[in-house]
Amino acid sequence: MKFEVTILGSSSATPVYNRNPTAQVLNINERLYLIDCGEGTQLQMIRFDVKVSRIDHIFISHLHGDHYFGLVGLLSSLHLNGRTKPIKIFGPAPLKEIIDVQFKHSETNLHYPIEFYPTNPDVSEVILDNQDVVVETIPLDHRIACTGFLFKQKKRLRKLIKEKVLALDIPLENYALLKKGAPYTAPDGTVYKNTDLTVDSDRPKCYAFCSDTIYNEQYFEQISHVDMLYHEATFLHNLLDRANKTHHTTAWQAAQVASQTQAKSLLIGHFSARYKSLNELLDEARNVFPNTELALEGYTYEVGIDFV
Amino acid sequence: MKFEVTILGSSSATPVYNRNPTAQVLNINERLYLIDCGEGTQLQMIRFDVKVSRIDHIFISHLHGDHYFGLVGLLSSLHLNGRTKPIKIFGPAPLKEIIDVQFKHSETNLHYPIEFYPTNPDVSEVILDNQDVVVETIPLDHRIACTGFLFKQKKRLRKLIKEKVLALDIPLENYALLKKGAPYTAPDGTVYKNTDLTVDSDRPKCYAFCSDTIYNEQYFEQISHVDMLYHEATFLHNLLDRANKTHHTTAWQAAQVASQTQAKSLLIGHFSARYKSLNELLDEARNVFPNTELALEGYTYEVGIDFV
Repeated sequence: MKFEVTILGSSSATPVYNRNPTAQVLNINERLYLIDCGEGTQLQMIRFDVKVSRIDHIFISHLHGDHYFGLVGLLSSLHLNGRTKPIKIFGPAPLKEIIDVQFKHSETNLHYPIEFYPTNPDVSEVILDNQDVVVETIPLDHRIACTGFLFKQKKRLRKLIKEKVLALDIPLENYALLKKGAPYTAPDGTVYKNTDLTVDSDRPKCYAFCSDTIYNEQYFEQISHVDMLYHEATFLHNLLDRANKTHHTTAWQAAQVASQTQAKSLLIGHFSARYKSLNELLDEARNVFPNTELALEGYTYEVGIDFV
Repeated sequence: MKFEVTILGSSSATPVYNRNPTAQVLNINERLYLIDCGEGTQLQMIRFDVKVSRIDHIFISHLHGDHYFGLVGLLSSLHLNGRTKPIKIFGPAPLKEIIDVQFKHSETNLHYPIEFYPTNPDVSEVILDNQDVVVETIPLDHRIACTGFLFKQKKRLRKLIKEKVLALDIPLENYALLKKGAPYTAPDGTVYKNTDLTVDSDRPKCYAFCSDTIYNEQYFEQISHVDMLYHEATFLHNLLDRANKTHHTTAWQAAQVASQTQAKSLLIGHFSARYKSLNELLDEARNVFPNTELALEGYTYEVGIDFV
């Protein structure tokens, strides 16, 4: 049950110091989900060996360019590389117009369908529910309509204890029931408890993506007890006024969010161009919430891991 | 009289092998002109230390994304970095809508004006005429409306021979006339020929940017005798059918263009993703037109230089 995030971009507003604008890829049970798609995201995927063809779902938080300027280029490359399977895009309603107008003027008829799902910035909604995950929007508080995304991995079936199942020569057709927790009755009438033949599957995990937003408790309840919180931390707390004015969060505040919502781990990102070194941001957050790490490009973080 | 081109991107269609989509910067007499702006162009400028703030003119050939997907990100960064001086953009008319729709939905009111000049793909027109250069569009033959750009550097005034001018103690107010070629009459009545006091300025040069296009003689006359021709060379000539179908040029054909129009030098670019190594493209072109070089990212080429 893999659940990990690879950071493709961690810069806010403009690219600097080799930091790209926001983009990250979740791998949940070997399916890839792209969150935000700043300019250069497809180049970052090449650089870090993330197969863009494996992405079937793209989530865009809001329409500031540092969160989506790489989207149409990525969609265009998928087309040029022969994709035919559909792609689902979740994002603010006007994103559809932005995509359409560009493909119209390039006279491109995509070889694959885009299924576009507009997000509602005002209320949390379930926007995806498949065999692996349920995804909810998280209404955030930014200068323009913006939602975060909460990924709740689904509980999987129990796992067979292979050697026991084979030793008892249990027929294949019983496997499905066993995985669901049923006992097994052998031909001689012996009843075996399910817990002797199976083990529980891993605990499913939760990942919350919160960017961009001012510190606002309205979304705290929804993200309580996540295994990993990605939260923007654009500024150090000595620039709180600037953070408030631009509807962003400080590193100290991001750590407060993690602490108050009892997150297991915190990743901070969306760093202002003013910080060449990120050490102070990390230190500031860790003083409040020790299990914090910087979202560094090219790195993959297991959801819920202990960083320290 | 500097006249040189720095390549920021040389890939066609999709970025691969660390090759970025089309973008290049001309430096003409220390003013920078950006031609095309594929995704990641602003990142390439950071990488190669090209100051984006020095660019006041942007030329977009056509609306395939590999030639403009980096534009709105670049314009956005100029805004965020506090630019106030206007920027002139020359490109296909619908580009205005593509820019406007994105700034509308990000609720961005740019701090600087964009002066947009739509190009006409059907006839050559002078689109810029300033103290340094005249720029004409070159109607090309691609799948969608597309123009190249011909940059004709202007002849500068004659240059004073400083030591002679100082030795004769010629008053400052005579300098302007001297630079224009007038003789100088000293207070004692002696007349000095202009050619004894000044030298001619450097020969002005011409640079033609031709991408994307099928091989078509319609634009040959306009670009005859340029000092440097940048021409797309997407494929090797063994893929001529593919080139014709997609309205692109082969390396052999690009060299034919240079040869028939009597260019002084040829830069080839817009390489297909199928070529990891570019040696064969270069060899093919040089067999026809020896003074050819690959347009390699990060490299700066003096217009009209002898490559070999």
